[in-house]
Amino acid sequence: MRISELSDATGVPVPTIKYYLREGLLHPGEKVTARLTEYDDTHRQRLGLLRVLREVGDVPVERLGQLVATAQSTHATAHEMLAAAAAALAPTPPEPTEHRAEARSVADALIDHAGWSNVHPRSADRDNLAGVLEAIMRFDTHPSDPAEVAPYLRAADEIARYELWHLRQDTGRQGLLEEMVVGQVVFGRLLGILRRLAEEHYSAIRFGQVSDPADASATYDGP
Amino acid sequence: MRISELSDATGVPVPTIKYYLREGLLHPGEKVTARLTEYDDTHRQRLGLLRVLREVGDVPVERLGQLVATAQSTHATAHEMLAAAAAALAPTPPEPTEHRAEARSVADALIDHAGWSNVHPRSADRDNLAGVLEAIMRFDTHPSDPAEVAPYLRAADEIARYELWHLRQDTGRQGLLEEMVVGQVVFGRLLGILRRLAEEHYSAIRFGQVSDPADASATYDGP
Repeated sequence: MRISELSDATGVPVPTIKYYLREGLLHPGEKVTARLTEYDDTHRQRLGLLRVLREVGDVPVERLGQLVATAQSTHATAHEMLAAAAAALAPTPPEPTEHRAEARSVADALIDHAGWSNVHPRSADRDNLAGVLEAIMRFDTHPSDPAEVAPYLRAADEIARYELWHLRQDTGRQGLLEEMVVGQVVFGRLLGILRRLAEEHYSAIRFGQVSDPADASATYDGP
Repeated sequence: MRISELSDATGVPVPTIKYYLREGLLHPGEKVTARLTEYDDTHRQRLGLLRVLREVGDVPVERLGQLVATAQSTHATAHEMLAAAAAALAPTPPEPTEHRAEARSVADALIDHAGWSNVHPRSADRDNLAGVLEAIMRFDTHPSDPAEVAPYLRAADEIARYELWHLRQDTGRQGLLEEMVVGQVVFGRLLGILRRLAEEHYSAIRFGQVSDPADASATYDGP
């Protein structure tokens, strides 16, 4: 298909497609004549991914470039490719503070407690976890006791298992990467929104006298 | 305590405290003499909240102002106060597109399916949910069938119930608001990081031949 048809098929404007081509985020089409370049389904698929990441995931262009580089490199295992993609998507860990070493120990202990033994010792998310635990400890609303974060650990564990065992197997490494990245970004956003909606609902039951709180506690089966 | 002691106690620099005072994000201290103003535990607590929101939640200053206004107004019920806070923290819904009406119907149906009947008809998160569902439908990696998103619905439901029934009751409305806001922002961030860590772990089992995949499927108890 021509660039204009590619634009219609994906909803990505032609100037944006040209920008992605210049930046190397989209691979070149096949030059048929001096004035005609053909694009195919691999271009349509990549543009769909880029559009979702930009619109929903709010992933900056530099990160998109890292992801594309990951997709193009040949890593030893699919896991290494996925880990590289996750690293490209992970936020930059917060600046270390005087309590960071302690928080990092708590973070490592929590990962052990969850049984996530395959998390790399140098995974950036270990420091991200330490940063957020430090904030929790500082505010001391909740202690950083594994029991306090148990519902979050359990939810993360269940969701990750569901996600990894529901990836389609027939799409090849490139398809696998794209599915993982969309899952990471878009379903992460979905989870955050659903949690806020559920909080709104249960806050009404708990504090709004909208329903009978006795009913609510009857359906609540403990932490 | 003096402003310098308040700074030491909270780790917030004196110029930042002065900025928060000017912006009305922090209530004035008590003027003891022309040159001495006393601050107390309410100031320490508010600064702790502001620090956490700025550092971990990455909440912009304008949103902080909305939150403080919410804390200071006297709403009819605690639920209304919490809903106003959640609205201040919710992201701006994405621009509507040609498929938004359809996505919004899917979003409303999903909220009904979850049983979250107390979500306000004009809650901004209904449009946020429509926006993310539209992205999912467009990319068509996963259909927007309630069964496909069931693990996310269940996790959101369990976490929200845990959170609402574990808020401390002895801190008054101001304390309740602060706890809810920190919970929303900081524990939301925590959940996102834990999910990525769990994905890294299970990706190694699924795709890295780190452990025996047969073991992994034995411990996996279905979606």
